[in-house]
Amino acid sequence: MYTYLELRDIVNKAVHNMSYDYDTDRLFEPVKYLMSIGGKRIRPVMTLMSCNLFTDKIEKAILPALGMEVLHNFTLAHDDIMDKSEMRRGSPTVHRKWDVNQAILSGDVMAFIANECIMAAPAPVVMDVLKIYNDTAIEVCIGQQMDMDFEKKSFVSHTEYLRMIELKTAVMIAASMQIGAVIGSAGPDEISKMYNFGRNLGMAFQIQDDLLDTYGDPKVFGKKTGTDIVSNKKTILLIKALELASGNQLKTLNEQLKLESFDPGEKIATVKTIFDRLNIKTVVEDMASRYTDMAYAALDDVNVKQRRKEELIKLAADLLNRIK
Amino acid sequence: MYTYLELRDIVNKAVHNMSYDYDTDRLFEPVKYLMSIGGKRIRPVMTLMSCNLFTDKIEKAILPALGMEVLHNFTLAHDDIMDKSEMRRGSPTVHRKWDVNQAILSGDVMAFIANECIMAAPAPVVMDVLKIYNDTAIEVCIGQQMDMDFEKKSFVSHTEYLRMIELKTAVMIAASMQIGAVIGSAGPDEISKMYNFGRNLGMAFQIQDDLLDTYGDPKVFGKKTGTDIVSNKKTILLIKALELASGNQLKTLNEQLKLESFDPGEKIATVKTIFDRLNIKTVVEDMASRYTDMAYAALDDVNVKQRRKEELIKLAADLLNRIK
Repeated sequence: MYTYLELRDIVNKAVHNMSYDYDTDRLFEPVKYLMSIGGKRIRPVMTLMSCNLFTDKIEKAILPALGMEVLHNFTLAHDDIMDKSEMRRGSPTVHRKWDVNQAILSGDVMAFIANECIMAAPAPVVMDVLKIYNDTAIEVCIGQQMDMDFEKKSFVSHTEYLRMIELKTAVMIAASMQIGAVIGSAGPDEISKMYNFGRNLGMAFQIQDDLLDTYGDPKVFGKKTGTDIVSNKKTILLIKALELASGNQLKTLNEQLKLESFDPGEKIATVKTIFDRLNIKTVVEDMASRYTDMAYAALDDVNVKQRRKEELIKLAADLLNRIK
Repeated sequence: MYTYLELRDIVNKAVHNMSYDYDTDRLFEPVKYLMSIGGKRIRPVMTLMSCNLFTDKIEKAILPALGMEVLHNFTLAHDDIMDKSEMRRGSPTVHRKWDVNQAILSGDVMAFIANECIMAAPAPVVMDVLKIYNDTAIEVCIGQQMDMDFEKKSFVSHTEYLRMIELKTAVMIAASMQIGAVIGSAGPDEISKMYNFGRNLGMAFQIQDDLLDTYGDPKVFGKKTGTDIVSNKKTILLIKALELASGNQLKTLNEQLKLESFDPGEKIATVKTIFDRLNIKTVVEDMASRYTDMAYAALDDVNVKQRRKEELIKLAADLLNRIK
């Protein structure tokens, strides 16, 4: 069995070996840049780990795993334009380092580079893998659309929110697991369990991400907290608070959302006080726990020896324990 | 044999029947809009015509042909943002009718819808078709990059220019033909001749497009002429003129390129006078003719009965005779 670190090294080597043997560097420089500033390589590692669950031979899953990472980075290049993000993983975003046009076009070419990687899946399963990948890519676009639409909406229900994070985040984790299982020659039932493991893990992960922005320890989390509150972001915390609040609490919450000029620290403190009185942290932690439980139940049910599952369990725990 | 009009109807029906059975309309409205404002459906018709050259059964080529049209429209959605174009086929561009973010995201989803259409190619050839399609899509991105880079360059050689239009325009026409031939079960030699037919036709077509902007009859052409001269666009006409001019002509030409405020009519007249003295129209028409001759030679060499080629010859002639 490969460990997380071994698999991340395999992915990093595959990223490093990507060759862009083409006429112009200008198009591919931003691709290399974005791919090299790294991140945790969660998705491709999951593809390889999921494959490794069913077979010791993971070589054939490396390029498709890389394809999932390229697809993920394609969405980042374009999402960062749409969200006007300045920084990504501590470095300037592509549209800021170059310009918007370059980020659009270098993003575009990544979609086709991802296709190419996915097309390298083993012949007997390549069409299955392509279908999973492509359906997922369309879902991710729909998720991003929902996320964009939320900004303009005055009310978002928690059902809508959960559907959005499912499409924008969880299906990609799910598909990464599923593709690994398909290439690892798992049977249809095991493949679908791996998909469910990934989907529920992805849901829990995204909900945790919302929790961390408000309740994370900045030293552990590595980012400032409270930015979601300052920007009125429709996180699951705010959505739940708006559902549960009434009377004066609801009035104060709505007032805070409408403030045009304010002291960020004060706004964070006021909103957090309401969250605390409504017990939002526990409510949302419980939601995340339910997804975590479903994830582990799906993995538990996969018909392979327990010791083969250990690396995946460790990775899942690492992902979900960032709050502590 | 199907005629151009019959095949265009088949394509239009396929466009009309595209179903977007998803959660959100906002993402797909711009896709439907851009696909429905039409155009001549050159690329998918070429796929079907090329298939029809080798077989009477063209049904299996319809979805892949549609894929080429969707890919083409994907590039238009994003190119229009990059070029800040306001109008496309007489209607507002997607980023103007909606906004830039929507045009990026709806463009993105089109790349994956195109994948899906291409993946519907018949099983025995689907991987071949996917490879042609995907390599072409990457080349089109490189062509767009070169085109963007040209704007910032003070000098572009005619060799660079020809490479740019080959990648940005000709390979897409070539791939449309090639995919039709592959699905029509043509042999490897015939497939490569069809690719060359398309490539040379695409080159001649793009060179003609430059000629039309300066020398077209606005009544026939349907657009104002001289816009390329006004905007200093590095067309093959200007590139050739800069290569051939010397002395006072070169001086005047360079002065015109540097003018910051000017009367458009006067600038067009001055530049056109230099073009005329340098015989640019004939020089560039000769270039187009050489590509046209190579295109017809490639088609001529394809091993099917002459009468089967008639529709393709008619379509090629229509495309190339727009100037008259």
